[in-house]
Order: sequence, then C-alpha cells, then structure tokens
Amino acid sequence: MARWMEPDLKVPAGTRVVDAKGKLVMPGGIDTHTHMELAFMGTVAADDFYTGTKAALAGGTTMILDFAIPQKGASLLEAYERWRSIADPKVCCDYSLHVAVTWWSDWVKQEMETLVEEKGVNSFKMFMAYKDVFMLSDQELHAAFSQCKDIGAIAQVHAENGDLIVEGAKRMLKLGITGPEGHEMCRPEEVEAEATQRAITIAHAVNCPLYVVHVMSKSAARVVGNARRNGCVVFGEPIAAGLGTDGTHYWHKDWAHAASDDLTVSGTDHCTFLVCQKALGKDDFTKIPNGVNGVEDRMSVIWEKGVHSGKMDENRFVAVTSSNAAKIFNLYPQKGRIAKGSDADLVVWDPKATRLISAKTHHQAVDYNIFEGMVCHGVPLLTISRGMVVYEGGRVMAQPGQGRFIPRKPYADMVYKRIRQREEVRKPSAVARNPYDGEIISLA
Amino acid sequence: MARWMEPDLKVPAGTRVVDAKGKLVMPGGIDTHTHMELAFMGTVAADDFYTGTKAALAGGTTMILDFAIPQKGASLLEAYERWRSIADPKVCCDYSLHVAVTWWSDWVKQEMETLVEEKGVNSFKMFMAYKDVFMLSDQELHAAFSQCKDIGAIAQVHAENGDLIVEGAKRMLKLGITGPEGHEMCRPEEVEAEATQRAITIAHAVNCPLYVVHVMSKSAARVVGNARRNGCVVFGEPIAAGLGTDGTHYWHKDWAHAASDDLTVSGTDHCTFLVCQKALGKDDFTKIPNGVNGVEDRMSVIWEKGVHSGKMDENRFVAVTSSNAAKIFNLYPQKGRIAKGSDADLVVWDPKATRLISAKTHHQAVDYNIFEGMVCHGVPLLTISRGMVVYEGGRVMAQPGQGRFIPRKPYADMVYKRIRQREEVRKPSAVARNPYDGEIISLA
Amino acid sequence: MARWMEPDLKVPAGTRVVDAKGKLVMPGGIDTHTHMELAFMGTVAADDFYTGTKAALAGGTTMILDFAIPQKGASLLEAYERWRSIADPKVCCDYSLHVAVTWWSDWVKQEMETLVEEKGVNSFKMFMAYKDVFMLSDQELHAAFSQCKDIGAIAQVHAENGDLIVEGAKRMLKLGITGPEGHEMCRPEEVEAEATQRAITIAHAVNCPLYVVHVMSKSAARVVGNARRNGCVVFGEPIAAGLGTDGTHYWHKDWAHAASDDLTVSGTDHCTFLVCQKALGKDDFTKIPNGVNGVEDRMSVIWEKGVHSGKMDENRFVAVTSSNAAKIFNLYPQKGRIAKGSDADLVVWDPKATRLISAKTHHQAVDYNIFEGMVCHGVPLLTISRGMVVYEGGRVMAQPGQGRFIPRKPYADMVYKRIRQREEVRKPSAVARNPYDGEIISLA
Amino acid sequence: MARWMEPDLKVPAGTRVVDAKGKLVMPGGIDTHTHMELAFMGTVAADDFYTGTKAALAGGTTMILDFAIPQKGASLLEAYERWRSIADPKVCCDYSLHVAVTWWSDWVKQEMETLVEEKGVNSFKMFMAYKDVFMLSDQELHAAFSQCKDIGAIAQVHAENGDLIVEGAKRMLKLGITGPEGHEMCRPEEVEAEATQRAITIAHAVNCPLYVVHVMSKSAARVVGNARRNGCVVFGEPIAAGLGTDGTHYWHKDWAHAASDDLTVSGTDHCTFLVCQKALGKDDFTKIPNGVNGVEDRMSVIWEKGVHSGKMDENRFVAVTSSNAAKIFNLYPQKGRIAKGSDADLVVWDPKATRLISAKTHHQAVDYNIFEGMVCHGVPLLTISRGMVVYEGGRVMAQPGQGRFIPRKPYADMVYKRIRQREEVRKPSAVARNPYDGEIISLA
Repeated sequence: MARWMEPDLKVPAGTRVVDAKGKLVMPGGIDTHTHMELAFMGTVAADDFYTGTKAALAGGTTMILDFAIPQKGASLLEAYERWRSIADPKVCCDYSLHVAVTWWSDWVKQEMETLVEEKGVNSFKMFMAYKDVFMLSDQELHAAFSQCKDIGAIAQVHAENGDLIVEGAKRMLKLGITGPEGHEMCRPEEVEAEATQRAITIAHAVNCPLYVVHVMSKSAARVVGNARRNGCVVFGEPIAAGLGTDGTHYWHKDWAHAASDDLTVSGTDHCTFLVCQKALGKDDFTKIPNGVNGVEDRMSVIWEKGVHSGKMDENRFVAVTSSNAAKIFNLYPQKGRIAKGSDADLVVWDPKATRLISAKTHHQAVDYNIFEGMVCHGVPLLTISRGMVVYEGGRVMAQPGQGRFIPRKPYADMVYKRIRQREEVRKPSAVARNPYDGEIISLA
Repeated sequence: MARWMEPDLKVPAGTRVVDAKGKLVMPGGIDTHTHMELAFMGTVAADDFYTGTKAALAGGTTMILDFAIPQKGASLLEAYERWRSIADPKVCCDYSLHVAVTWWSDWVKQEMETLVEEKGVNSFKMFMAYKDVFMLSDQELHAAFSQCKDIGAIAQVHAENGDLIVEGAKRMLKLGITGPEGHEMCRPEEVEAEATQRAITIAHAVNCPLYVVHVMSKSAARVVGNARRNGCVVFGEPIAAGLGTDGTHYWHKDWAHAASDDLTVSGTDHCTFLVCQKALGKDDFTKIPNGVNGVEDRMSVIWEKGVHSGKMDENRFVAVTSSNAAKIFNLYPQKGRIAKGSDADLVVWDPKATRLISAKTHHQAVDYNIFEGMVCHGVPLLTISRGMVVYEGGRVMAQPGQGRFIPRKPYADMVYKRIRQREEVRKPSAVARNPYDGEIISLA
Repeated sequence: MARWMEPDLKVPAGTRVVDAKGKLVMPGGIDTHTHMELAFMGTVAADDFYTGTKAALAGGTTMILDFAIPQKGASLLEAYERWRSIADPKVCCDYSLHVAVTWWSDWVKQEMETLVEEKGVNSFKMFMAYKDVFMLSDQELHAAFSQCKDIGAIAQVHAENGDLIVEGAKRMLKLGITGPEGHEMCRPEEVEAEATQRAITIAHAVNCPLYVVHVMSKSAARVVGNARRNGCVVFGEPIAAGLGTDGTHYWHKDWAHAASDDLTVSGTDHCTFLVCQKALGKDDFTKIPNGVNGVEDRMSVIWEKGVHSGKMDENRFVAVTSSNAAKIFNLYPQKGRIAKGSDADLVVWDPKATRLISAKTHHQAVDYNIFEGMVCHGVPLLTISRGMVVYEGGRVMAQPGQGRFIPRKPYADMVYKRIRQREEVRKPSAVARNPYDGEIISLA
Repeated sequence: MARWMEPDLKVPAGTRVVDAKGKLVMPGGIDTHTHMELAFMGTVAADDFYTGTKAALAGGTTMILDFAIPQKGASLLEAYERWRSIADPKVCCDYSLHVAVTWWSDWVKQEMETLVEEKGVNSFKMFMAYKDVFMLSDQELHAAFSQCKDIGAIAQVHAENGDLIVEGAKRMLKLGITGPEGHEMCRPEEVEAEATQRAITIAHAVNCPLYVVHVMSKSAARVVGNARRNGCVVFGEPIAAGLGTDGTHYWHKDWAHAASDDLTVSGTDHCTFLVCQKALGKDDFTKIPNGVNGVEDRMSVIWEKGVHSGKMDENRFVAVTSSNAAKIFNLYPQKGRIAKGSDADLVVWDPKATRLISAKTHHQAVDYNIFEGMVCHGVPLLTISRGMVVYEGGRVMAQPGQGRFIPRKPYADMVYKRIRQREEVRKPSAVARNPYDGEIISLA
C-alpha cells in the first residue's frame, strides 16, 4: 500500500482531491477468471461485458481476465477476434483475454504462437473435463504445455478428471438422482486432486509453468502447495465462491490459510445464469448451465475471510487480489502497483465499514447471489480507473467501451526466470562409458 | 509362526522328522509377481518356469503368481491356456496366474467373467504404461475396474504414466542419451506417483479393490499409504529389488518402514534377461529388455532389511512374505498358514545364519544378480512343498511338473468384505424436493 | 473369528449348547482403560468395580485394565495393593492393573521393578498434565521411560501439555468463562499433539515402547501414525467417546479410518460422575470432575462406526477391540483368542440387530450416557466369561468377585521383539581416528 | 531490485558514479544471527565485531544482528550495555542487538519492557537447550512469550530439547564415544523438531509471534512450514551452514525449496573458534566450543543453491537475504530497500562471476571455513554502506566504529498486524445458559 506520497505534489488546477484519511488506497483488484456473456450449454450467461465490468468496479476491481473459447476444430484466432469484437464496445474497465486450447493440431500450435506474438495473449487454458466438448487427452496436454513453454506463455488448466465425471453422472441418473445434488455427487474431491496432480506432473516434465484455475477442494489445494514446496513453478487460483459459501467439499475453513501461502491469486469464475436458465436442468442436473457470481464481491469476501479474521495482512491482500496476478500475467508494474508510470487503477477501501451482500442491491444482472446475506467488513468507497473516478457512493459512473484491452507480453519474469534457469542447469547429459563389446543375441 | 504343535502327535512309521530346534518354521513364501520365460521386447526371459521355481524353492518360496498376457486384440482365455500349457509341465512349486487386460471390448469383458467362473482366476492386471502395446486409457481402466468389481476380482495396475515415459524417452534420445541412464531419466519419481493416484481415484470411484504392482518410489508408496488411511481398499506391492539395491529414486531407506505399515505383500517382478539379451539395447536404452531377478532372494532380503534391522517382527515378516498374499488372492488358509488342513508348504528358517548373495552360487539361470555381494542374515535351511522336502543343504530336489496350478475363487474376504459393506451403506440417494414450477427459458 | 470348530467335538453331558447360527463368535472385548470408583477431584466415580464390570459384560467386554494411582510421594506398591483389595471382591469379569508413576525417586524406580517381578504389572502410566498433582517433568519422563525399557514394561502416557492447560484455564476464568466450554477452550488440539510428539521423541531416544492413552484429536492421531511409519514402537489408544460423540475437536469423521491403520487398540477412559457430582464445578469448570462413560457401549460403537460403515472388517474389529490389547499387554493367547488352552472369554455377536443406547436402559450406575440416542448395528447377544454364560437376554448373571486378577509378564513379544533387535543393531560406536596432537589454547 | 532510477538524477560534483551495467544492484544483506567475540564455553569467539563485520561487507552484507546474552540471574540491561560498549567502537557496518532471556523473574520482565521502550530492542531470544546455563522451562517460556506479546516484541527460540541432549551426551560418553561425532549422535533430528513444535504451540497459545533461529533439520523446517500454513505467525531462519555443507541430518537437498516458501529470512549463527580452541574438547565432544562461520559467504551460498539452481528468483533472493529481515525486525524501509529516504546500503552483484571459497582468502579471523572448496556463482563486486563504498576489488575499506547501532521499534507491521487482528476477532466468550439449580453433592 502507498506508504507515502510526494509531500510537495503539485496538484493541477481543477483536479479533484479525494480525502482518504483513515482509509486504505490500494491498487484496483484484478479478477483473473471471468466468463462474461458466455454462450454455454445452450444459453448465454446473464452478465455481459457491460454489467459484469460495471459490477466489478462497484466491488473495487478494475481489471478482468476473460476467456476466448473456440469450439473443437475451430480457429483460436477467430475466437480471439470474436471475443474482442464483443467485449471492446462494452467494457467499463480494462480487460485482457486468455485463450482456450480445446483441440490439438499443428494449426492450433501455430495460432498459439501468432496470438503471443501479435495479439497480446500470454496464457492458454486447457480443459481436463467437459469430455468430447473441450477436454484434451494427456498426450495433447503434453503437446500444448510444450508449446506454451516454447513461446513463453503460461499454461492454465481446468483440472477435473473428465472421464470420471461422465461416468459418475451416468450412474447418478441411472440411480434416479436428477437434482442438483447429482452435480456434486459425481465429482468427489479426489476427481479434482487427481487431475491437478496429473497436470502438474506433465507440466513439470516439460518445464512449463502451470496455473491451476478455480482450485476448489482442500485436497487439490494441498496438491498445489506440495508441488510448490517441491520446487514446481505452479500457481493455484482459488475463487471467491469457494471461500464465502460452504459446499460440503469446499474447504472454506482452510481456504484463507491456504490462500495465505499456497495459493497466489484470486478469481471468481464469474459466469452467471438466471434462475430460469438454471431451470433448463430441472429434471436432469447435467443440463443445468454451470456458473456462479463473484466479480462484484470477491474483494470484500477475501478481506472478510482473510484480513478481518487475522489470517493475512493488507500487503498480502493486495498481493492476492491484484499484484500477483499482474506479475504472473506480465501486467506489472502497469497494473497491480501504485507508482508513477503505472495506470492509476485504484480503490479507496474502508476497512471498518460493513456491507450486506444481496441480489437486491448488487450491480450484477443475475437474479441471485451465492453470498446472499453475508456481512463483510471491508467496503470499497471509491474506485478509480486510469485516473477517473468510476465508482463512488454506490453508483458506477463508467461508460460502456471506456475500458481498454490490455495486451500482455510473453516470458513474465515471475514465471519464466526460474524456468529458464532450470532449463540451463538441469539439462540431462549422457553417462560416458566404453562401448559394450560383449556378445549380443540375435533376434530372429 | 507355529507356536505349538500337538504334543502327542502320532508320527506314522517311515516319516522323516526334521529337528528345527532354535530355528523358525514358517509358511513357505508366496512371490506375488513373476514373469517366467516371458516373451518380451523381441526375446525371451532367461528363467523359465523350471529354473525360476527351482530358485524360488531354494529361497524358501513355495508358490509364485505369474501373469498370462495376451497381445492387444487377442483372447484372454487363449493366453491363459497357453501359459498353463507352458508352465504346468515345468513348475517345481505350486503356482497361479493373474491375467492381463491389455485392450477392451465386450468380448474381453465376457472372457474376464469366464476366467473367474471357470478357470480359477481372480486378479486382472491393467497397464498404464507400455503405450500402444499394453496401455489402457482412463476410460478403459474405468470399464475394466468396474468389471473386476462386478465379478469379485481384484484389479492390479502397473502404475506409470505411459505418455510421459514415451515423450521423455524421445527427448533423451534426441539429446544423445542412449545409455541405460536414459531409462531412469525419462521416468522421474512423479511419473509413478501420478499414475498411482489416478488408478486409486478411478478404482475408488467404482468401489473396486485395487492392487498396485511393483511400487518403486517413496512418493508412490506415500500415495498408497495415504489412500489406505483415507479408507480406500488398496494394496501396495513392493518388490525385492526396490529394497536391496539403491537406484537413486529407490527409497531403500524407508522401504522397510513403509512395508511395515503401508505396503501389504511382496513380489519380485522376477523377469530375467542375460547380459547378451540386455545388450540388444546397447545403443538405445529403449531397446533393453526390462527386468530384474528376485525370486530366490526375496525372503532373505526382506528378513535382512526388515527383521534384522528391527523394523518388523517375525509375525509381520510372515504376513508380508506369505499370508497377506494368500488372503488377498483368496488362497488362505490353504496357503500362507501352518494348520491342519492347510497345504504343508513350509520353510525352516535360520535367523542367525548369514548368506552371501552371488550369481556364482544362485540357482537362477540368469548370469548376474542385482543383489550381488549383499550379505543377508536369515537363511532358508530346508523347504517343504506339500509335505515333501524339496530343498535342503543347498540342493533343490523337486522335479519339473511337481508343482500344481492353484485355482482361486473370487470375492476374497480380506478384499471384498469392506467393498460389499460400502456398497450397501454408501448408496447415493436423491434429495426429496418439490418440483420446480417457475419460469424456464426456451432454447431456440 | 472362529472359522471352524472340531466337527466331532465331544460335548460332556449337561453342557449347554449355544446355537450361534448366523451370528459371530468372537473373543470377549478387552477395555484397556477404565477408572472404576476412582477418588478424584474430591469425589468418587459412580461406577465401582461391580457395576462397571457388570456393564462391561453386558456390552461384550470380558476384561478391563484399570489403573492404580498413588499420590505424589506415595508408594506404588501400596497403591497397587489398595486397588487389588478394592477390586478383587467386586469384579464380575477378569481384570488387570496398570500402575501410575506420579513422581520420581530411586524408591519409585525400585518399586517399578518389584511390581514387574512380583505383582504381574507390565505397564506404567505417566502424566504430562495435571500439574502439581500427577505431572512429571521431561527429565522425569526420560528416567521413567528408561526404567520401563530396562524392566521390559510398556510406558503409557497421558499426553497433554499441562503447563498450557493451567495457563489457559486461568485465562478463561479471568475472562469470565466459567462454564464447561472453558474446559475445551483451554485445551486446543495442539496441546495434545505437542505432548504426544514430545513423549514419542523421548521414548524413541531411550528405545522404550510407548503407548499413548486416550488419543483424542485428529492431529495427535496423525502424530502417532507418522511416528509408526517412521519406525517408532508406539501404540495409540482411541477411546469410544472420541468416536460416538462430536466435540468440535473430536475427529469422529476420521476416527475409524485412523483406527483401521494408525491406532491399535481401544479403551474408554470409563470414569463416571453423576450429574450432581459434575455440579461441583457449576461455577468453575476447573472443578468439574472429568470423565465419561464407555465400558458398556465400546464394542457396539466401534462396530457401528468401523464395521457397519465399511471401514474395517470383522477381523480388524477383533484386533482393535481385543486381540491387539492382549498382545501388547502380554495376555495373549490366554486372552484375545479363541483356541484350545485359551480362557473361554467369548461374545456371541449379532451383526444385523440394532440397539438404542440410553441411560434409561444401560447397566451402568451413572445417570447419563454420552451416546444417548445413538442407534448401533451390532449387538452382543450372550457373553461368556471363562466358560460361563454371564450375560444373556439383557440380563447379567455374574456375581461380585467372580472375576480374577490376571497377572502379566514383562517383555511382550509384540512390543519388545523389535526393541531388542534395535538395541543390538543400532548401538552407536565411536569413529576411529588418530589423536589430535596440535595446539590447544590454555584456559585461564 | 531497482527497476528504474530517476532518469534525470542530478549528480553532485565530485560524486563517484559506479557503472553497474549487466550487474544487479540490490539492498545490502542483513545477517539476522551472529555471535561476534562471544565468550562461550571458557573461551572467546575468534571473529570480533571488527573482523566479523569486515568480512560481512566483503560478502555483500551491510548489517548484522547480534545477541546480548546475560548469565542466569544477571541483568538484561547490563548485558545490553556491555555488548554496546564492546561493539560500538569496532563495527564496520551497521548492527543491532537481540537480547537473550536466560532466566525468569519480575525484574527480567520489567527489563524487557525497558529495553523495548528505551533501548531500541524488539526481539528476545529464549533457549530450550543449554540446560542449567541458558535453558528455560516451558512455564518460563510461556511467561516470556506472553511478555513479548504484551510489549510488541518478537520471541526468538533456540529450539532443541535440552533434556534429551544432556541425557544423550551422557550416554555417548558412557559408550566411549568422545569424538565430535558424539555431538551429532546425541541430537537426532527429532530433538529439534520436537522443541520447534513445542515452542510454536506455546507461542500460539498466547498469540505471540515466534521466530525460530537456526532451523537445521528438514523435519524442523516442515514443522515451521505446517504451522505457517495452519495460520501461526511463525518465521523460520535457516543458516548458511545448513545449506552449503552436508551434515547427515542437514537437509541440503531440500533447503532451498523450503527457503523458497517456508523459511523467511537467513542468518549464519556466525560464531567462530580456532582449531586450537575447538581442541579444548579433543577428548570430550561436550567441551568443544560450538560454532561455525558464515557471515562472509551467506549471500553467495544462497545465490548458488537458490538462484543459480533455479529454485528462487532474484526477488526472492532479496527478500530472503535482506528485506524480510528488515520487515520482521522493523527496520524497513530504512534497511532492506532501495528507495529515496532509505539508508544507501547496497551491493553490486555479478550473477555470472564465480568465486572459490577458502580460508586462505577469506576476510574472517577464523582459520578454517566450513564451505572450503565450494565454488559459487554470484559474487559481490562492490558494497556500499550508508552511501560510502566500503568494499571493492577484494578490499574492505571500512574503519572500526564506522557502523552504527540501529535501534528498532516494537510492533513491526509484518509481525503484529495479524497478531492484533486475531486478538480482536478471536476473543473467547462464555456460553450463555441458565444457572444450574439441580442437586449438588456435598464434599466432606
């Protein structure tokens, strides 16, 4: 946090001066994981790039990272361009795009390189679930991770064992379990932990940095933490929903501890469907469009569970909600920092005030809120995006299209310094020995 | 061990009485994992069912479990019959057969059932490595494990990530690493731990008992141990080579600890190739036929590292070398026990004597010994197979064909009691709720 | 469990034959930890050796191990004799005595030896809590453990950090917390885990076998389990109350898993006080006499949580409730086994029947039951003590004094075999080197 | 590291400009743990505050934290003043003092407060070893930690079980083991892990921040790491000797991993005795004055093992060698940072150059070097202390007394923010209930 300001700062005439006495001024939040207006499972997410980014600003978040997701067989570049064309005119805050790799071919490989070199993309997401839709095989993961490493990108994975989920879902339906509980019953905790371990093993084998999206279970978080302690370059992303709510296998008790050490950043997987959309699966849980909200409440929820409870201090809060994300995705120090030369994305935070979360008052388009009724200490009073006050007193003042797309360069220091050093010092070498000159059997 | 014998036992005239004063009389060893005369990688293992079982008897082992392995696309039943026809006339001690499932189809599924019902097979081995040769996909593993569970068999896995090994080997050769060190370099410890975790996760999802063959690394052993403590019905099989030798990633220091608690049985993966056969891969480590010896020295090596070092007591030794295997594979109390009605497979063991292991003196056909030079406390003095002295004073007196094939029934108590109980008490059930009668969006 | 009986058993005339078709016949339970009619905190436990052992029989338990506890400064032998004189005329089932070491001196050391040699005691309990009353310092623990090792006894510890509990209790009272919640608040889980780790470290340093009584928390159980896997000769004793009830830090979810592997036996710490006795501490939780019931319900509770839930099989149940205790305390095969020559302590168990636990119907003198309302599968139908039916159809038929004191010899095989082997092979030895002949500074 | 400098910096005439192109400019190192000219075990450490701080500068370290250690019964203030009077005229770099608490009384408690309020001390060290000399009992630790918490200081511990070491040493000598191997043999790894766990448990109970000095073993490091992940405010300090050398229980393989995550700072425990001093214990290892060198080589050794090997990046290096120490001990941003207003303590580092460590060439007074022969990448080219070049081209140019004593304030943010927050939100409270009005037994 800003410990000092220039004492003799010249304030140009007409400049508004905000009095933040007793408040904290922090870098605006970066939500590493959103899916605005995603077309998914036959319908389209309720929050689009306009309402979604408006809600973000209201919560103190000044940048989101969304995903461009091509269908199997389709062009990554085209997906990227389509997402740009949708988002650019609507966003109220800055944003950037991860791109999903949902199938594999030499063309895909080539497009990844183009995206890195020409389009400002440095992160690619691979799915280990959504079988037949997005899922890659282990061999394809190996190839995709290798390519990420070769072009200086970071590999992201959705880590759940897709085969087991499919088989589990079949079994549940066969047993007559059609309600939403079936969704959870067919993905016990180990389905995530197993896939996380597998992804880490493959990434480590090719010396590629790995970023595990939406780490949900305690056992998966432990897998990430252990790998980090064993020296792997791996990052875990918890999502706000995992903290503020209490699904049976959501490790809320331990989440903030883990976030304090093992998990590095925080996202939301914000992807909202209205109740009438969720109802598509009223007789079959496999038809419920998956997704939860979070983009507006992430900062407050993490403050409440992390800082207010005494598990992290404010520095760690800034790291977890903003600056680590900026470093990993190579946006730092443009984002995630308060300094001369950095974008003036700021939030003025009142650590003592409290706020009741409710769908009745939130800025999101969706008609429920998974944190409904939760009271959070830690409230954003005022949000500044690139120097302009865009949120204050409960009101968002940003216009659609006011945000910009932020391109990102490959080879982020925080990610690639160790990768490169390892490449150099760990090169395997052959053992020198005299050639074998004994007998050899002959094969028929 | 036999704590007492009938004090007034009537010894029929002409019966030889063996004086075992100061010695231990134990159930003969059961080697859970051998590959006698296996045709593999273009050549055939040096120890056949005759020399292999002769060596077993010399080491105090009175039963082996070998593997019938069909090629992809081939009949499991035919493989079984072929192995029987090869082994039956040669074996000097009793034996049984696991059968490998190297591909998947309804026919394979049906043959598994036939093998269980008609042929005395209750264990099937699946490979997660040997890509394109024996390896199954996760989906096929799921199907095979489900079938094992439905027919009361135990699923065995060779747990290594086959994709990673293939890619690793390519990389090593590309780097000019052609010597045997490449074999190890392309399979770092986590390649085994990852696959072990995956197999356990899949098996647990279908409530199938799992048996992990040749657990080699400390991290894989930890995965097995943790799963056991989390309540999974999983068994780990260390092999003698992992204990007596010191490959860099062989956890010899901790092996006996682990064996004391986490690992349940012990095998050898005895599959021996002569130096001139190994030389097939002199310019390319991927062409070296894999395999080590162990069938003769397993009991002594475990005694030395486990009992002599104070890590296990004699009761645990009998459990690990014999009776647990008998229980898991449903041979108990016919095998693995000294009692009226059990087969008289016995070994008279001298816990104080020592023995130097060497290829010069061993009974195996192979021309090296990976334990060469090791001195073991704990020496078999005399081995009895079904009531007949078959080894004594360094000499094996058994004839080829003297051993029998031992059929095994499904649903071993030690394995299936808990499986069945879980099936009953853990059946998932739907949540009762009123039907949703709100709005539903309509899809175009 | 009895797998077969002599088919042609001659039944003497007048012998009652019990039909146990469809039922299990198992060795009677051994409760390793009771405190009948203990004078404690100014009052005396409600269940005496008569009502307590009567209740034991009703629950299928045929032997208890109680504790003779001298005051600081008092004779261990006298305590032992006093306990004998109280218990002998009252017990309805067989029993034995652990003796507590509550202070240290050469006299105590000598008395320990006498108890082992002349009085049939082979286990001594040391307290790490109850400061100024029973607690020993680390140095005294070291001395007591050393003596146990020298005389072939097993060291038992009550492992809680007594200093922290005293300070915690002071703090709670100062904060105005006088109710029973204070008891728990002043002993967070780590207070037990820390002491457990410390006791194991000291015991391991002197190569003394250790038995941790009433392991309550998940973290303490993990400490025991890890030590076992690291090769320590340590045993953990969970108590029934830890399983059937759900104190916040009682790890009931994981208990049965742990019991399946890490914990070896089971006790109850049965030490019951009436509500009007507990009321002594109505205004100050530190004055509530501590203690819970368990002796009657232990077997049923473990069956329910362990076997019925699919976490252990019947063999493991017998081990955990009876035979392991017999082996550790050197009562085997007299107790803990069904065999010719063993005491005929048996229970006929109905695995399908259910029973509702309630203070209204139990056989104990205490006026509440911590398992009140719990329904257990697994019901003892009939209990036999040394060949006589002592419980049947809900009625106990044993007379006071019908039970005997069972003396125990030192150096139990299960405990001391490994200890002795280590002693031999791990003796430290000096490094041979030439004497130093260089300069040495001189001290003033 | 300095990412940018004022582009239009006005350089006063006569100012020397250092060209650091291709080099790294980093905050000077802070060695958190030295014992210069310590009187110990009858003799005095060879490196005094002059040679010791000279060597520090040569290695890129610009500040040391030493310890003022009173005898049992003596005044802490007097010890502090004595150390000041010795060090002030000799130090070549800045320094500060931790003060040891070697006994307990109300007077000691009062002096701790005075030291914090008037003397610039905010850290106190307690010993769990050196029985009868420095060692505190658990109860005294509890009191000392409570006082630290009340006055805003950080508690430091030397965590080894002193009782076990004393008993172990006696045993070794009795077995005729008098050589230096006895030192290690009487302190197996668990002696440290146990004490570390105990210290953490006590500190957590009183909500006091804890700093574990010289974490030596892998198991102790794991204890620290687990506690951190469980939310304890605890810091671990590895020392250089634990990394660069390979005592059997020094976890050098894993050290840098751990340092990357679990351990926060780095010290040396620099306390050097000449060979002729060590020889005091030539016939009895308990008389060897303990201590190793490190102050000169710490930075290079950590660079080699951490950064060069690819386990940490340069940012983490600066954190571990300098800025974290500054934050924990409340010296930040005066120390540990390159910024306007901070002390200009800098080192110009050549990451590519290599250096051979040897007693022949080092700047220390001691006549051996435990890193003898080690080649390190990463070499300090030039060291600046408060704006003056004090080391360059192998030559130290600082004068005795040129360094200053740096006072430190209590309640360091990095340490106390979470402590205070917990104090507030975790206050225990009584359960409200109706008073008990039932029967109460009356005590005689």
